[in-house]
Amino acid sequence: MGGYKGMELLEIIKSRRSIRNYKNKPVEEENITKILEAARWAPSGLNNQPWKFIIVQNSNTIKQISKFTKYSYIIEKAPSLIVVLLDKNLSYNREKDIQAIGACIQNMLLMCHSLGLGACWIGEILNRKEEVEKFLGIPNHLELMAVITIGYPYEEDIKTSSNRKNLEELIIKKI
Amino acid sequence: MGGYKGMELLEIIKSRRSIRNYKNKPVEEENITKILEAARWAPSGLNNQPWKFIIVQNSNTIKQISKFTKYSYIIEKAPSLIVVLLDKNLSYNREKDIQAIGACIQNMLLMCHSLGLGACWIGEILNRKEEVEKFLGIPNHLELMAVITIGYPYEEDIKTSSNRKNLEELIIKKI
Repeated sequence: MGGYKGMELLEIIKSRRSIRNYKNKPVEEENITKILEAARWAPSGLNNQPWKFIIVQNSNTIKQISKFTKYSYIIEKAPSLIVVLLDKNLSYNREKDIQAIGACIQNMLLMCHSLGLGACWIGEILNRKEEVEKFLGIPNHLELMAVITIGYPYEEDIKTSSNRKNLEELIIKKI
Repeated sequence: MGGYKGMELLEIIKSRRSIRNYKNKPVEEENITKILEAARWAPSGLNNQPWKFIIVQNSNTIKQISKFTKYSYIIEKAPSLIVVLLDKNLSYNREKDIQAIGACIQNMLLMCHSLGLGACWIGEILNRKEEVEKFLGIPNHLELMAVITIGYPYEEDIKTSSNRKNLEELIIKKI
């Protein structure tokens, strides 16, 4: 368990950072389950829950997956990956399903952070989507959406700053 | 402030429900700001923050917007709406940007719930996207992604149950 118990939600949301370097320490099964519980409870259009997951913990498999992205240095150090897939058999509207996948991923990222774990959302690997899908041996109705790397943060590397636009730039108007 | 202060993240995630009926009570500006703060801190690919927002609190405008969806009964009772837009000028990859929009919406939904507010993610209104964009008078580079209704829950209507697939159904394999 991390040191974030009792942290208020806005604090969890604002203090989360992409973590790209991990301690050589496995992620407990109990925590993987909590992260997937968070994923499972994401909202989706018509509650179609279009997500599927592959949990990767074998270090050799992780090493092989790392080769499909220019961010291999992040993946290869992570003790666990969650591969996030869209189940096209459950799809009712591709763009809404992809929004739901984003909500599901955010639940996982927040859950990792609240457990004291670090995570990185790797989207760049989609550039080699078909190759990764083939490597993972997944059926045609499942489509790669992202790979989430998870591990205990190598603390010296945690970025404390992160740029965000001001609210004034984001609000088009109030009516 | 709601009664959810100190609730653990997994509890917030699992107890959130779509709220479709609201008390006749405005949402405080302070809470709207917290919800948008949560939105602002969502992750996005290359940190491009492709989201923009319109805050709608005028009851007549809300009534007019409600006519663009079959869920008008939800929108018309809500004291506040946040219209979520994709800024196509900031887009670097449409599907990754749409995932980021989903993460941003999920931050808002969780924030609402943790403040004791209820929210509903209205995607069905995208069926009349162009008409809504025209009504809102937004420039061409902004695209409607969703409308989030926000208000204090009319408690008798809160659904306590919600179906989710078991984890076993969602995990394709562990490797």
